[in-house]
Amino acid sequence: MAIKFELIKECKRTKARLGKLHTPHGVVETPVFMPVGTQATVKAMTPEELKDMDTQIILSNTYHLFLRPGADLIREAGGLHRFMHWDRPILTDSGGFQVFSLGPLRKVSEDGVTFKSHLDGATHFMSPERATEVQMALGADIIMAFDECAPYPCTWEYAEAALARTTRWAARCKETHQREDQALFGIVQGGVYNDLRERSARELVEIGFPGYGIGGLSVGEPKPLMYEVLEYTAPLLPTDKPRYLMGVGSPDCLVEGIMRGIDMFDCVLPTRIARNGTVMTSRGRVVIKNAGNTRDLRPLDEECSCYTCRNYSRAYIRHLFKAEEILGLRLTTIHNLQFLQTLLKKVRQAVAEDYLPEFRAEFFAKYGYE
Amino acid sequence: MAIKFELIKECKRTKARLGKLHTPHGVVETPVFMPVGTQATVKAMTPEELKDMDTQIILSNTYHLFLRPGADLIREAGGLHRFMHWDRPILTDSGGFQVFSLGPLRKVSEDGVTFKSHLDGATHFMSPERATEVQMALGADIIMAFDECAPYPCTWEYAEAALARTTRWAARCKETHQREDQALFGIVQGGVYNDLRERSARELVEIGFPGYGIGGLSVGEPKPLMYEVLEYTAPLLPTDKPRYLMGVGSPDCLVEGIMRGIDMFDCVLPTRIARNGTVMTSRGRVVIKNAGNTRDLRPLDEECSCYTCRNYSRAYIRHLFKAEEILGLRLTTIHNLQFLQTLLKKVRQAVAEDYLPEFRAEFFAKYGYE
Repeated sequence: MAIKFELIKECKRTKARLGKLHTPHGVVETPVFMPVGTQATVKAMTPEELKDMDTQIILSNTYHLFLRPGADLIREAGGLHRFMHWDRPILTDSGGFQVFSLGPLRKVSEDGVTFKSHLDGATHFMSPERATEVQMALGADIIMAFDECAPYPCTWEYAEAALARTTRWAARCKETHQREDQALFGIVQGGVYNDLRERSARELVEIGFPGYGIGGLSVGEPKPLMYEVLEYTAPLLPTDKPRYLMGVGSPDCLVEGIMRGIDMFDCVLPTRIARNGTVMTSRGRVVIKNAGNTRDLRPLDEECSCYTCRNYSRAYIRHLFKAEEILGLRLTTIHNLQFLQTLLKKVRQAVAEDYLPEFRAEFFAKYGYE
Repeated sequence: MAIKFELIKECKRTKARLGKLHTPHGVVETPVFMPVGTQATVKAMTPEELKDMDTQIILSNTYHLFLRPGADLIREAGGLHRFMHWDRPILTDSGGFQVFSLGPLRKVSEDGVTFKSHLDGATHFMSPERATEVQMALGADIIMAFDECAPYPCTWEYAEAALARTTRWAARCKETHQREDQALFGIVQGGVYNDLRERSARELVEIGFPGYGIGGLSVGEPKPLMYEVLEYTAPLLPTDKPRYLMGVGSPDCLVEGIMRGIDMFDCVLPTRIARNGTVMTSRGRVVIKNAGNTRDLRPLDEECSCYTCRNYSRAYIRHLFKAEEILGLRLTTIHNLQFLQTLLKKVRQAVAEDYLPEFRAEFFAKYGYE
């Protein structure tokens, strides 16, 4: 068995769960946030820095790696772990989300998707079989089925067609998949329509996967609507399998998702806003370039014990951003990733000790909602 | 005494020397190469990374820090060491070189230089007194006199006027300087004219400094000419004081400089070419983006034991550069800086054990001249 999900605890007061995900590259405590390493690197970070902040698992992108440097090279290099010098678990997405995001650059048929590379315009073909083969070559611990992610807003009819195709494609992915050291997750679609979510979950569970992604959320819909869909969808999935909410990473969405039964998350948010000089602190976001930080010799967050907050002032980090120095975005990236890892650690603690609702109230009283 | 230079050994077969420079922030073994942290950061590096590669001392730029973030802020922050989280020795240059490089943006008088900032065009004034005060506020262990660096080529008359002013200004710097925990170095000028170098050295030694920079070299003249000037100039300086060749950092110039009696060097070269994807290896320079590295799973340099070479392949680093990922230039910067630190360590060993000429021959047989 490629992975084994061990359900440690179900919260009595919320739908939150504690688990352990056993993978060929180690154990992941859930709920977990996965930093994104799109192009086989979590932007601006070394693997050692990620480990220093207790990163348990990272995500990488099949679409990007397929185009550059190519799956063959990564296989020759001994797989993605060795290629990028990361020996803990990796999850690769299937490329479905990216390919469907290309808009006019792609053409969909039942067979798969023909698309033009965003890099050089070259034409490529991606299908459930191809996406699975590429992910087998990359060698992540967890790989995702090739799905069709419907946009928001979209009609019931559109969402229905996309989920139906996603189910058929998921079966083809499972058929193709052959690595025993790797787990293939299905992806629940269905837009914001509960009946479609129910059908998608039922069909996928019928095929049977060791874990389930929930896709097609955080694509522009209001947060309360996302929470509503999650509330309905998560309980449709087997209790003994991990549930992964794709593309979600703001503190409020993480906590709200966990309360609704989600075990895994990923998002570029913490690293992307860090490179723009925005950091998450216990009192909400701080924009480091703001003039108010010019002579501020305090750390980014006085409650934080990350490398950045232990050693550098806001004034110095602001200077680095004004001077366009790379160290600036390194320091903010470290801080934001550590902030989310610490948040999830606190949440796991709160679930373990049955005070998640109180933790949530206290956290957001200071942090605010985004 | 702010610093004490301890001459450990003079090579019998060359003019090379071994020394120890005692400073308020620790001891520096010479000959030493100082990485450049222009804007209070060695580009893309943390202080911990610099220490991991045994960096003993770094250089920072008065001109840049004066303009941004300003010396007042750095003083408020507890000085440059604390501001940038570097607790080993620092040397600041005076800003003379940068200000004179501004060309039409500056106007020189005996009093000082009026110039327009390269950042926002604002007018500023810098003088020997001001440059010294700013450097006192920054609080480096070693600071430099405000000098006039003549360009290459230039006439004897021009070089003569510049050196004469440099001497007069050096005296004013010394008059102004008052920090006992800080050493002020004079700077020998005189272009490529031996008689002027002799006069500059004599006049500065008469004023008396705890160390001497050799300026106005590596500004475009052919390397053999630079070596000739060094050959002549270094012995004019007191044996018991450190000699610092400013702005030099290619492997050949370091070795040739050391053989002619130089103790200290700085240059942006290793970090700048690293960010462009060029690395120094035991077999010469390698341009990582070259197609030949596409599937090359060897490290940058098989003889190197730096963090980069221990953990990453050329193929991966090339991928990072092609994908414009920050980790790429971090890895090449680490490698290049480590390469020079290792080179200098080997040179010190060779001086200590009297085989510098043989080391030089062997090194360049593989590395080649640049």
